[in-house]
Amino acid sequence: MERILIKDAKQKIGAKVQIMGRVLNARLLSNVSFLQVQDYSGTIQTVWEKPVEVKVGDAVEVVGEVREDKRAKGGCEILGEELKIISANIEDLPFDLAKKDLNLQLTTLLDWRTLSVRHPKVQAIFKLYDLLLKHYGLVLRANGFTEIKTPKILCAASEGGANFFKIKYFDQTAYLAQSPQFYKQIMVGALERVFEIGSTFRAEPHFTTRHVNEYISLDAEMGFIDNFRDVMVMLNKVLAEVFAKVQEEGAEFLAMHGIEDISVPKEIPAVKLAEIREIIKKKYNHEIAEDTDIDPEGERLAGRYAKEEFNSDFIFITNYFWKDKPFYTMPSPENPEETEGFDLLYKGMEITTGSQRIHQYDMLMENMQKKGVKPEGMEDYLNVFKFAMPPHGGWGMGSERLIQQMLNLPSIKEAILFPRDVKRLRP
Amino acid sequence: MERILIKDAKQKIGAKVQIMGRVLNARLLSNVSFLQVQDYSGTIQTVWEKPVEVKVGDAVEVVGEVREDKRAKGGCEILGEELKIISANIEDLPFDLAKKDLNLQLTTLLDWRTLSVRHPKVQAIFKLYDLLLKHYGLVLRANGFTEIKTPKILCAASEGGANFFKIKYFDQTAYLAQSPQFYKQIMVGALERVFEIGSTFRAEPHFTTRHVNEYISLDAEMGFIDNFRDVMVMLNKVLAEVFAKVQEEGAEFLAMHGIEDISVPKEIPAVKLAEIREIIKKKYNHEIAEDTDIDPEGERLAGRYAKEEFNSDFIFITNYFWKDKPFYTMPSPENPEETEGFDLLYKGMEITTGSQRIHQYDMLMENMQKKGVKPEGMEDYLNVFKFAMPPHGGWGMGSERLIQQMLNLPSIKEAILFPRDVKRLRP
Repeated sequence: MERILIKDAKQKIGAKVQIMGRVLNARLLSNVSFLQVQDYSGTIQTVWEKPVEVKVGDAVEVVGEVREDKRAKGGCEILGEELKIISANIEDLPFDLAKKDLNLQLTTLLDWRTLSVRHPKVQAIFKLYDLLLKHYGLVLRANGFTEIKTPKILCAASEGGANFFKIKYFDQTAYLAQSPQFYKQIMVGALERVFEIGSTFRAEPHFTTRHVNEYISLDAEMGFIDNFRDVMVMLNKVLAEVFAKVQEEGAEFLAMHGIEDISVPKEIPAVKLAEIREIIKKKYNHEIAEDTDIDPEGERLAGRYAKEEFNSDFIFITNYFWKDKPFYTMPSPENPEETEGFDLLYKGMEITTGSQRIHQYDMLMENMQKKGVKPEGMEDYLNVFKFAMPPHGGWGMGSERLIQQMLNLPSIKEAILFPRDVKRLRP
Repeated sequence: MERILIKDAKQKIGAKVQIMGRVLNARLLSNVSFLQVQDYSGTIQTVWEKPVEVKVGDAVEVVGEVREDKRAKGGCEILGEELKIISANIEDLPFDLAKKDLNLQLTTLLDWRTLSVRHPKVQAIFKLYDLLLKHYGLVLRANGFTEIKTPKILCAASEGGANFFKIKYFDQTAYLAQSPQFYKQIMVGALERVFEIGSTFRAEPHFTTRHVNEYISLDAEMGFIDNFRDVMVMLNKVLAEVFAKVQEEGAEFLAMHGIEDISVPKEIPAVKLAEIREIIKKKYNHEIAEDTDIDPEGERLAGRYAKEEFNSDFIFITNYFWKDKPFYTMPSPENPEETEGFDLLYKGMEITTGSQRIHQYDMLMENMQKKGVKPEGMEDYLNVFKFAMPPHGGWGMGSERLIQQMLNLPSIKEAILFPRDVKRLRP
């Protein structure tokens, strides 16, 4: 007999079929038993009018007749005839995967990620993550961007040098990339619009609900812009299209996390950093320290302001201060203490940083000097600006933070299959 | 005036338009000049009946009237009226980007990758690479696979321990992932069919035309298989569908490299390793050493055999020897000296390694012991096999080797934007 997929069972009503999958749930009663079985295409209830021996989590093969059942999710169930255990649990599961909610401490959830990820509600997070990756790529391509892959092993700890992981690279010392920044800019010179989905490594000693030391960055960079607003318009468009698709194809997974609507405003509100600091002080009585641009509480309140004032989950903060931005950020023409840099907040948390970049060689060298950044190790990058780089800008976006905020997860680590933090290198 | 994309010019015949892009080629004559301009959507010829000052490589804005020209590639050209240099070369380019072929030494090509990648024929390689990434994801998803991202920083140098790069991870030592092998197997337990497109790091001291130390691996893993043939059938299907799409959408880029047809046979021929060794010896008089499975010359001759015997660019070599395969490879039921492992060769070079994996805890522990592999650092992985893992298998495929072989590039490094080898850490 040939296996059918569970999603196709409803086309087989009255027929005898074979399915394979994992037992998600089992109610074993004296005269009748119910096993919920999942394969990669869906789940189905199987009904047994004879005794069955099986445990939650076992991998099974079921043969039986498909019966219509209007109350069931897929419109049908299977009246089980033969049950074969393909692979059995040889120890008891460390927690009950059949419960509606796992309700585990974060540490337990992650220590046992190899099994907790089998829970449907946890699976749903990673199904949505898959949809995010899929549509980020499709939407960027539809807008003329080419996907690139750039090296994660670098010869120099550029961009200031802090927070890089060191590698022993044969007889040299090398560093893990904190961002594809230089490479995506270089590639604007060739392909004009590029994007990358890639691993990013930050040796930051933070131990918070919003930081990890390895994550997947959704980067993009585009040429021939007029100013940084062009980048914000593109990012707004991309997010709106991606989220609409995630909603369309992932509604059932969103619903499992109690989320109904993830739509992105057509025009995300934008406020200058200096202004939002004032607003936060006046409206919410929170003063952001002078030596920082915006703090996490400030972000939270900016998010609250966006919701209250514009009914938006998103808000752009623009014109970040020159003193806080990397050397390649374009200074504002109207105010040299500010830059053409922006952040995007989603539900009160920074998810994206972007800017127009400096594309003129002389200005770049001058800005580096003013910031006291040494050109050593960046020669290839700097040199390309001698060769007619167009005005350009782009963004880096934390993929896992997007999902964290979308689903209101308390920690970013719930949005990563196998997260890495200062203390965690396993599983 | 609003910029239009070059690809849309043919809808504007007779109209005055503005385009932006890079000057790919310039013929400046006394009474007429021709500038070929490229943006991310295409290229167009602009004709100037007045003197213009511009250099190849400059970023420009052109205003002019679109004229029909049946001889031109896009069916039209632009009669230039205004030319503005948006960004100029401030030094001479190190080579002539306007030549049909760059004809650079590999070292020069790569040392100057930041500029050589602007050449149309080099761009074409990375346009095809983009299509490969796009369709690998789409085809896998259409076959029920979920995309995952797994960590590249590992706590242990697993799988034997050789050829791992070491990282200083805060106060610990960590390692860069050589493959997502363990993670994708773990994820089969949850999502049944998974794939990953991710960075892979190998500290191999090879310095060849087919090795690099960092590459992008196209991985997949699937559950509930009957045997390793199911994996080969899926891989065959995936490659056939992906290559058909690359051909359809990338024909012009293939043509620039003289490639017309990249179709994949419906059924790729498969020969056992022991048999292909015999065939290579008898047919081509090449003896593969006893202490190796197959050598590069053997692969080349196996590829020649596939072409001569089956008119196929692809050939599966199956039943690799138990002594040469990692501990998680399923031994052949009919011959314990062989495994359910296979390689796929493309034009005589290995591009994929795959197998059925051991899914039973006891067999896995026994096989490890036989191979003398210590379980330390692999506890989370090994433990999951106590919990009803279904029979499963999968593959890892070198994305850059696929493009190298597709285009007959002499070195894999031509198929990587910024390759990393034993000596090369820049650009």
